[in-house]
Amino acid sequence: MTDACAAPAPRKERLSFDAAAGRTAEELNARLKGTPAIIRRLTVHLSKAAGKNIRARSLLACAMGRDGLIHSDAACLAAAVELLHLATLVHDDVIDGAARRRGIAALHKKFGEKAAILCGDYLFCLSLELASAVEPPADRRVSADRTLSHYMSDILLGELRQDQNNGNFALTERQYFSIIGGKTAAMFEASFYAGFLLSDEPDEAGERFKEIGRNIGLIFQLADDCADYEASHRTAGKPVLSDFKTGVVTLPLIYALKKDAGLLARIKAGLGPAALKKAVSSAGGLQYARDRIAEYFEKTRDFIAALPSPPEKKDMLSALLGKAAGRGAAP
Amino acid sequence: MTDACAAPAPRKERLSFDAAAGRTAEELNARLKGTPAIIRRLTVHLSKAAGKNIRARSLLACAMGRDGLIHSDAACLAAAVELLHLATLVHDDVIDGAARRRGIAALHKKFGEKAAILCGDYLFCLSLELASAVEPPADRRVSADRTLSHYMSDILLGELRQDQNNGNFALTERQYFSIIGGKTAAMFEASFYAGFLLSDEPDEAGERFKEIGRNIGLIFQLADDCADYEASHRTAGKPVLSDFKTGVVTLPLIYALKKDAGLLARIKAGLGPAALKKAVSSAGGLQYARDRIAEYFEKTRDFIAALPSPPEKKDMLSALLGKAAGRGAAP
Repeated sequence: MTDACAAPAPRKERLSFDAAAGRTAEELNARLKGTPAIIRRLTVHLSKAAGKNIRARSLLACAMGRDGLIHSDAACLAAAVELLHLATLVHDDVIDGAARRRGIAALHKKFGEKAAILCGDYLFCLSLELASAVEPPADRRVSADRTLSHYMSDILLGELRQDQNNGNFALTERQYFSIIGGKTAAMFEASFYAGFLLSDEPDEAGERFKEIGRNIGLIFQLADDCADYEASHRTAGKPVLSDFKTGVVTLPLIYALKKDAGLLARIKAGLGPAALKKAVSSAGGLQYARDRIAEYFEKTRDFIAALPSPPEKKDMLSALLGKAAGRGAAP
Repeated sequence: MTDACAAPAPRKERLSFDAAAGRTAEELNARLKGTPAIIRRLTVHLSKAAGKNIRARSLLACAMGRDGLIHSDAACLAAAVELLHLATLVHDDVIDGAARRRGIAALHKKFGEKAAILCGDYLFCLSLELASAVEPPADRRVSADRTLSHYMSDILLGELRQDQNNGNFALTERQYFSIIGGKTAAMFEASFYAGFLLSDEPDEAGERFKEIGRNIGLIFQLADDCADYEASHRTAGKPVLSDFKTGVVTLPLIYALKKDAGLLARIKAGLGPAALKKAVSSAGGLQYARDRIAEYFEKTRDFIAALPSPPEKKDMLSALLGKAAGRGAAP
């Protein structure tokens, strides 16, 4: 394999977490700014608003070795994961007609839908090229069906399920979890698993890393979906009730519709935002979703505690778990 | 590497051209019909209208060995190339607002734009998964920057150039060739190169196979662009002047605009289809484009003749060349 990563010259080295996070940000920035002229305006626009890179940071934390250091390949893969995430965001925004993303104009609003669809496709290619430059250690057993493009398929199927259930107030809790299991949790699982592959964790810990990643993804999405109904919270760049307004039915509403028999009729009669939020909260929808978060949180906390990893690494994973649930700061 | 290809069980064998073409069609069909339930309606719809598979047939012809047979891996890669092509068509149709494709309703017309964007992304993943199941022979030197996702980037950049030059009557011949070099020729080059990699041709023939593929792609697009201005010709499922009507400026028009100083004003004043075709033809636009086809045709014919390949293989490549130019039947 050649190394397409890390301009100007491939550097294979072991880095501290902060150095690896810095390398990831550099790599991401270099990729977005180093595109051919025809697409540069678009990718440079995207580079202006950095995300929180929680998927990249997850990957780096999982890649940490017993020496507390991270192989530079992990920074390369972490940048690939963030590019893939960015590709899905660009297409999502076209699909949802969103006006803004990460505090700046959505790509399709600034450059048109056609260009945004093509740019999303291009970011997808860029991500896969970057990922293909990295190979797991030769002695690592890898499950063949867990490539980045497999996970990407899961994400797309989750998004498709969400689209096909747009405005479906009969959505069940089971269907909801199937949607978020794809659209959000699959990318977290991919990040955790990719990091694990580059670590010196024993092979048999792989399934556990996947499960921790998946749960943290579910928690992340559940917390995001709660925030949509909480007047006092605002997720970055996203107005309150934005899911509801675009027809996305989430767990707080699903539970409230089950408990409050008259709610659906009131929604159809044009219930206002404040009244809707109050109704969802009064029916116990927010509390129910928060209880699900607490369940996943506790289970995942125990999984992390039982890992064979060094304490410093476990602390980082716990911090990521707390960050996803909105209970603390990520590493 | 595991083999994700060829259900029910991986069969590694050497096949005749017809058997390999049959295997490719089976594989493509199985992939499109074997998708998860949520997306099956869409991919089954796509499976109902087979394309001419010229890219797949190119790949198979290039993969032919001295024994006249083709490794079954080539059928797998050929199906991947057609899936990738299909992914670009699905997104193209969303972008162009096309109503029909290959004689059936365009995907976005039947299932909505959102679903079509996600389905195109999904086909893209499917293609890359299939391609990743195949590895070139261990002793083959492969240029690292010629992966399927690299070629895909070239295609997207070509499409983006086309989009950014929509309705640009000042488009130059050079810009035109830069557009079609991406959007069409890159996929042909990829098909020829992938086939070569799986063949027993000497390493040093690789560049020549790429060039032949690229030229055939250019000829294919030039012929398609001529057909758009020829009343008597219709490309499959595509109405005459469809490029012009969607703002795509092609070589016959570029040349005519250069030779007929008043044409632009007449177009802007609302020149009708019949008069436009007549004007492009009278100004020599069609003849000029056909002359370019003839130049590429002759150069490429000579390249094929000089290949170290067996006569049967050269005949197949010549037939593909003829097919691209609309002068004969493909193998």
